[in-house]
Amino acid sequence: MNDPGDCTNLDIMHPELLTQEQIVAVLTKRQIKLESEDKAVLLELFKAHILPQPQRQYRENRRGKKNINKRKSQQADENEFSVKKAKLSSKESPRLFVPFTPESQKCIPPSQINKDRKVIQLSSPGKSSKRQKMGLIEVSKVRMFSGWQKVFSHESSVLKCKMNFGIYLPQTSETKKVPVIYWLSGLTCTEQNFVTKAGAQKYANEEGIAIVAPDTSPRGCNIEGEEESWDFGTGAGFYVDATEEKWRNNYRMYSYITEELPKIIGGNFPVDTSNASIMGHSMGGHGALTIFFKNADKFKSVSAFAPICNPIECPWGQKAFNGYLGQNKETWKNYDACEMAKNFNGSLKIPILVDQGKADSFLLQKQLLPENLEKVCSDKNLPVTIRMQNEYDHSYFFIATFIEDHIKHHSQVLNGKL
Amino acid sequence: MNDPGDCTNLDIMHPELLTQEQIVAVLTKRQIKLESEDKAVLLELFKAHILPQPQRQYRENRRGKKNINKRKSQQADENEFSVKKAKLSSKESPRLFVPFTPESQKCIPPSQINKDRKVIQLSSPGKSSKRQKMGLIEVSKVRMFSGWQKVFSHESSVLKCKMNFGIYLPQTSETKKVPVIYWLSGLTCTEQNFVTKAGAQKYANEEGIAIVAPDTSPRGCNIEGEEESWDFGTGAGFYVDATEEKWRNNYRMYSYITEELPKIIGGNFPVDTSNASIMGHSMGGHGALTIFFKNADKFKSVSAFAPICNPIECPWGQKAFNGYLGQNKETWKNYDACEMAKNFNGSLKIPILVDQGKADSFLLQKQLLPENLEKVCSDKNLPVTIRMQNEYDHSYFFIATFIEDHIKHHSQVLNGKL
Repeated sequence: MNDPGDCTNLDIMHPELLTQEQIVAVLTKRQIKLESEDKAVLLELFKAHILPQPQRQYRENRRGKKNINKRKSQQADENEFSVKKAKLSSKESPRLFVPFTPESQKCIPPSQINKDRKVIQLSSPGKSSKRQKMGLIEVSKVRMFSGWQKVFSHESSVLKCKMNFGIYLPQTSETKKVPVIYWLSGLTCTEQNFVTKAGAQKYANEEGIAIVAPDTSPRGCNIEGEEESWDFGTGAGFYVDATEEKWRNNYRMYSYITEELPKIIGGNFPVDTSNASIMGHSMGGHGALTIFFKNADKFKSVSAFAPICNPIECPWGQKAFNGYLGQNKETWKNYDACEMAKNFNGSLKIPILVDQGKADSFLLQKQLLPENLEKVCSDKNLPVTIRMQNEYDHSYFFIATFIEDHIKHHSQVLNGKL
Repeated sequence: MNDPGDCTNLDIMHPELLTQEQIVAVLTKRQIKLESEDKAVLLELFKAHILPQPQRQYRENRRGKKNINKRKSQQADENEFSVKKAKLSSKESPRLFVPFTPESQKCIPPSQINKDRKVIQLSSPGKSSKRQKMGLIEVSKVRMFSGWQKVFSHESSVLKCKMNFGIYLPQTSETKKVPVIYWLSGLTCTEQNFVTKAGAQKYANEEGIAIVAPDTSPRGCNIEGEEESWDFGTGAGFYVDATEEKWRNNYRMYSYITEELPKIIGGNFPVDTSNASIMGHSMGGHGALTIFFKNADKFKSVSAFAPICNPIECPWGQKAFNGYLGQNKETWKNYDACEMAKNFNGSLKIPILVDQGKADSFLLQKQLLPENLEKVCSDKNLPVTIRMQNEYDHSYFFIATFIEDHIKHHSQVLNGKL
């Protein structure tokens, strides 16, 4: 399914499952020198340089167990090694490449350095090691529609794990700070779905707006049950701050989206985060609506594709809220768009825009319930435009069809066109 | 990387490598009833209903060997079963679902029938069983930009294997036959890359043009070495008719694209195949240029993104031509755009359009050689527009940026706008 310039859909967490060609493609893309065509050698290169360290979980099969034992036997060496590196670092000696996690990242020989990979130092004060931990790593950077589509990873202090986000910077950002729209994706997505499939970049460039697309949950937190369901845990953070013991240390997507992420964007990119809107799809549509209702001072407008409008009344929402927030359903209302609309006292500069495909199987399964949002908004006299789109489904084909309308909708407020 | 409405990037050939969620997503999308949450049960459902039978190759690991033995022990039962089904078929009894390969497809209980999956009978005469073998199976169908993005599979008589192609039908095709552009993809791609990432559908609908995107090679032909490289064999048909013994029975992409595919399109869709153009990317750009030069009567215009312009002079082309065509380099010239341009006697209605990213790593590796095409066309006075695009790479982000220009370029001739 991939072309040589397109390694975005591979499961790099489990290189032992990749084909030799896929491994070669990833290594080549990262400009790592291929020392041999032997798959075992390539696999070692992959593990040394590609595998994100904080998430390195081996599978429970023969190879996985072998690797776990191998890692144990390497521990002593690595600890010694990291002390050496820390000393080097304290002398502030000039280095071409600043390792992101110096404690665990193996040394990369000069011939294997990817010169395109940058670490951006955040401007916050503190000790050298602390600053390094807050750094952004540029994962990829591609020219698109006269702007740049980039992906970064960073250690999230709120979620306590490594997180990726995509950011599209329009051409106008070369000369001035631009407004921003945050895009929140749906269940099982990463930052990649929107970046590769929504076709938003053209309109973002035309309107001179940056688009930030974060991942949908913390990952690799080693919480029991995290990987069991596709609609709970990894890939399904539901944009809440969990209160249940098991999840509350990591699953805090609400705070990540409303606090940590805007700070990172404002501090590192030519983006005016005080001029921001928010939109999303499915679970991310729920996220956009609820975050907007609670933060109408931070976001100027909101829109959604096939949002989960009334999670406390649908199976997806009930499962997630029960897991993250516990059995007291009163607390669920803090994260339910319909309940929040009832109590919303802010004013809307432009109507809420919602597109919903009529052939969306999740609409038919009563997971989305746009009719409930429509009723609440009508009762409250809140301006909302819900467009029921004949024959469209729940996919990114549907999103791509109407993304132009949504970006132009937000541009009215972000670019003062009203 | 997938959302619930988006199962397009999964490797369905090896369901044992998919996660439980991915299997559930695929089964749900095909509207197959989930009888249990147990992964083993789901895997059996997947194998019974999703796995394309002619390509079913188990991996050489423990599970694969187990499955091979299991299949052997099922042979007797299945043969008996297929006789029963053949008898049923000969009576022409009405059936809701016509199995594509009745010899091997297991019976699907009524509760698990996907009512959206259609078999289109081709109009050619012949016995019932023959007609069935020539049928098209609608793999997917999605509303997009007021038209339909569909994917079909069929048994190719030229390639002697099952093939997929994508077809986008614009809204105008509901009332009249529309022109068509064929898109040929690059190395390692399937029909999905263009369908999900190029963003072409908007402009195809605006211009009222269908776009047909076939797969890039035969698949699952059980030829030794077929799966060894990413730039030869599967995913790398190079749009030639192979002459070497080992490959010539299946690897005939030139004949498939120029003969079989247009017949299928013309015979089954509201498309005027006499009003056609051709374009492609990388290996597919080479395919588009060479097929156009040899068939200027069948295609009205040609364009390409980062094409392999002079394959006999680059490593990719030399490897492929040596493998498919043998060591006599004279025969290679029949499939080299630069050589063919030298001898081209037709006339061009509009210039050849080529976009090439300057930051394309394969350009720097001398795989593409657009300068050679430019020189030949200049010498021959053949009108060609080669646009070197600053900072763009080889990816679908690059294609998405300029696809509008290419579709509008072809629309000039296809819609008589000259």
